[in-house]
Amino acid sequence: MARALARRWKLFVLPAILVPVTLGLRVAGVSDLAVFAAAGVAVIPLAHLMGIATEELGKRAGPGIGGLLNATFGNATELIIALVALGRAASLAAAGNTTGADGLVEVVKASITGSIIGNILLVLGLSMLVGGVRHKTQKFSVRAAELQVTLLVLAIVALVMPELFQISYEGAGGVPPGLPNVSLGISVILLVAYVLGLVFSLHTHKDVFNPVTHEQDKPLWSRNFALGVLLASTALVGLVAEVLVGAVEGVTPALGIPRPELFMGVIVIAIIGNAAEHGAAIMMAWKNKMDLSVGIATISSVQIALFVTPVLVLASLAFGRPLTLAFEVFELVAIILSVAILAVLAKDGETNWYEGVLLLLVYAIIGVGFYFHP
Amino acid sequence: MARALARRWKLFVLPAILVPVTLGLRVAGVSDLAVFAAAGVAVIPLAHLMGIATEELGKRAGPGIGGLLNATFGNATELIIALVALGRAASLAAAGNTTGADGLVEVVKASITGSIIGNILLVLGLSMLVGGVRHKTQKFSVRAAELQVTLLVLAIVALVMPELFQISYEGAGGVPPGLPNVSLGISVILLVAYVLGLVFSLHTHKDVFNPVTHEQDKPLWSRNFALGVLLASTALVGLVAEVLVGAVEGVTPALGIPRPELFMGVIVIAIIGNAAEHGAAIMMAWKNKMDLSVGIATISSVQIALFVTPVLVLASLAFGRPLTLAFEVFELVAIILSVAILAVLAKDGETNWYEGVLLLLVYAIIGVGFYFHP
Amino acid sequence: MARALARRWKLFVLPAILVPVTLGLRVAGVSDLAVFAAAGVAVIPLAHLMGIATEELGKRAGPGIGGLLNATFGNATELIIALVALGRAASLAAAGNTTGADGLVEVVKASITGSIIGNILLVLGLSMLVGGVRHKTQKFSVRAAELQVTLLVLAIVALVMPELFQISYEGAGGVPPGLPNVSLGISVILLVAYVLGLVFSLHTHKDVFNPVTHEQDKPLWSRNFALGVLLASTALVGLVAEVLVGAVEGVTPALGIPRPELFMGVIVIAIIGNAAEHGAAIMMAWKNKMDLSVGIATISSVQIALFVTPVLVLASLAFGRPLTLAFEVFELVAIILSVAILAVLAKDGETNWYEGVLLLLVYAIIGVGFYFHP
Repeated sequence: MARALARRWKLFVLPAILVPVTLGLRVAGVSDLAVFAAAGVAVIPLAHLMGIATEELGKRAGPGIGGLLNATFGNATELIIALVALGRAASLAAAGNTTGADGLVEVVKASITGSIIGNILLVLGLSMLVGGVRHKTQKFSVRAAELQVTLLVLAIVALVMPELFQISYEGAGGVPPGLPNVSLGISVILLVAYVLGLVFSLHTHKDVFNPVTHEQDKPLWSRNFALGVLLASTALVGLVAEVLVGAVEGVTPALGIPRPELFMGVIVIAIIGNAAEHGAAIMMAWKNKMDLSVGIATISSVQIALFVTPVLVLASLAFGRPLTLAFEVFELVAIILSVAILAVLAKDGETNWYEGVLLLLVYAIIGVGFYFHP
Repeated sequence: MARALARRWKLFVLPAILVPVTLGLRVAGVSDLAVFAAAGVAVIPLAHLMGIATEELGKRAGPGIGGLLNATFGNATELIIALVALGRAASLAAAGNTTGADGLVEVVKASITGSIIGNILLVLGLSMLVGGVRHKTQKFSVRAAELQVTLLVLAIVALVMPELFQISYEGAGGVPPGLPNVSLGISVILLVAYVLGLVFSLHTHKDVFNPVTHEQDKPLWSRNFALGVLLASTALVGLVAEVLVGAVEGVTPALGIPRPELFMGVIVIAIIGNAAEHGAAIMMAWKNKMDLSVGIATISSVQIALFVTPVLVLASLAFGRPLTLAFEVFELVAIILSVAILAVLAKDGETNWYEGVLLLLVYAIIGVGFYFHP
Repeated sequence: MARALARRWKLFVLPAILVPVTLGLRVAGVSDLAVFAAAGVAVIPLAHLMGIATEELGKRAGPGIGGLLNATFGNATELIIALVALGRAASLAAAGNTTGADGLVEVVKASITGSIIGNILLVLGLSMLVGGVRHKTQKFSVRAAELQVTLLVLAIVALVMPELFQISYEGAGGVPPGLPNVSLGISVILLVAYVLGLVFSLHTHKDVFNPVTHEQDKPLWSRNFALGVLLASTALVGLVAEVLVGAVEGVTPALGIPRPELFMGVIVIAIIGNAAEHGAAIMMAWKNKMDLSVGIATISSVQIALFVTPVLVLASLAFGRPLTLAFEVFELVAIILSVAILAVLAKDGETNWYEGVLLLLVYAIIGVGFYFHP
């Protein structure tokens, strides 16, 4: 274990500093903004550590189980933050603070939206731009990208139906009848799509659709060490997420905009939760491995939509405050537009700096929209 | 004629049993549900018989006229059921039962929606799944599929415009001014698109776009016998459709859901009306003729949208209860989403079992939506 | 200069006749309809002359600056007509006629919509039809077309966001808070996309995306003569646009439809403003240079969306009557549908007469919609 740690000790330095600092600031009772910033920064190297531990476990387990591990833990950070926020919303509601509880549920939904569009627009946009500055054109597998686009279209279908319930009920207030049932039914369908998708890409057609996991490096960590790191980092992400979520309510009003929860979730929380993917995808693009960049960004979006979202809907039943699949119209439209521009760009299997710029500009337009949202 | 009958006598067995049974049940005054079920089952072999007779006539007439016959009679079952329902709606309205009349018109519109999305999602999804279980990947002509996708986009344009009239008039009640004119104008445009599409695919570019009709088998029936079978089966479909439509009003309340007419039309009637296509397309997929499967499913959707729908709008003028092109928002959205996922899947000219699963899951999501529709 | 004029003197004949006739009719005080018709006809050869002068200047300046000139002056006619209309709206408003002012602003927005969809549907549709009558299939560069489709999707994103502000504020009357800010922010983003797009297509990737400007003919005019013609024709377009816009208010009621400003802008003004592109694109299609046809039509749409529209938004600040990016829902939907059918048709890099017919039928459906718009 000492050797394993020795080999990649740099991974542990940042968490070892940032987690205590975050907890210290919280205990010291400094401003929510400072606590929020510290927690947001501390989450990032922890998420990276979780990713490395998952990868190490995967190397020992072989490609099939490894793919499964990646598919399950790949967006664990977003999932943990969201679960912590739902838990806190439930206790706020129990304490009579329904406004706060509703605000946190809104932040959770917005962070789902933000993760989906952020991976497509910000992560992929930066990757294409950074890669494109160095390489005139870069190539990626159209076939793999189109599978992810298809799954994102499925996700859009799944979000549009509940939205229609919401819209057709507008004005009457409260939750439309049938919406919780529809959300549950559709969540189960999404999980079926996700699980069968794993069977498809990891088993029956693994030769065709596995551009991302073909690196077969030798494991550096023992199985037990990797498992220990995974468990410890997951627990610490949960702890830091508690601090982060606890500070959200104190920070949002400071934004001074009409709908701070929306902006907070779509832009800020989503960037924190996906920072590890950001780093990895951009690094791969810089190294001209655009296939991996596109894979990381699109698969991460799909995991959020087809795995994290339905799990949160099902988990919310346990918390007693049901999370429905009916998002804000703004959020749904942002997702649809992001997938539309991805579909158009993914067709030719090539990227360049200007395509990256276009994705970033779409992100900017959507950001402006959420900032001024009335 | 005896020889012709002898050669394919099995085709006549089921109708010869099911039609009298259906009529008998109706006369005996059993429950509407039993009558509806019997009529629904009886329609299927009759539709198959119509298809065979059309095909036999086409063989004698040569590919051009044969194509025209297929294009006209290919969705005759749906057309007949819808016309019978419109006729019954008119007589209900004349008898003062406007609720019943409106309900039937709603069933007709819903069955149009259900036929369009059912062919894309259910027929094609089952074909891809069944074919994909046996063959790892199956190929089809991208070029032919994309023509049908383009025509479906045209159909969406044609349905969106009247919808905007409906939405912008919402709340005021009644039919928006201009909507009947717009429906008529757009229906004529759709028929022009359909007729010119036949000129294009059967005449000027028949070498390029005719993957479906290249089987040139020898006819088994004489021209007169085929014509006789076509006329007789068409008449019987009309008769059974009368019984089916007459039982609809008695069955819908038994569903116990908020909008039974919608669910009935979109799912049940649409499946009955398209059962013949279902069987043929799945059989072709199993035999690895995915080109034919995709052709049957997509062309059938296009025929409903570009031929059956405008003919119903024009015919409804004769019945005195105008059918407009303004569908439920739910229906229009379901059509748009179905075409979107078809467009994404059709791009690469290959199918596999998971693509079939995805289409079926989209169908399931839409089905859940219509079931709980408030 | 005499030689230069001599070489292409025919270009000057029509303006030399039509401009004085238009001004004469205006001074003579004949009916607005006659003045409007004369001005509409007079604009077309002037726009053609501006195009030739820009081209001649471009030949002398080399491909980079030439491309820049084309990109800036390519839709100068639409820009001038719109600016003149905004100016007149401001003076009408100053004179207390806010109904007239609002009507003119509506005509301007509608003419933007009409230019975008007109180039895609009418110009490209006629080109494909005319070219397809002579040539069975015609080819064009998928890569160049897809770049333009991507930019049009960006434009749609830019128009959807403000629309959501408008819709979510509906009923409250007046301009939604935040809408002017969002319009300004998004306009700046669109201009950034446009300018970086020029860097991309004229500089870093000019070898890949320059199918339109590869004709390297010898200049026929001297630089000074070309500059003089450009300035003079631009001034005359401004003068005739004054007359045209002044007659609009007198003509619209004569249409006898519920929303004459909308129909006038989307169909009539847009056709007048784009007549020069129409002629050029159709001519190229007839000569089997479909690459140039597709380039002219799609690039013109993109220029309107990414250059003319944001410039008008920024310019409107100077006039004191802010033009926002929130269009009518009908207009936005028409743009989305046009881009969708373009995206589907552009995928295979081939055209035929029936694809042209389909674009024209979509234009007809949208035209019917705007004509009866309640």
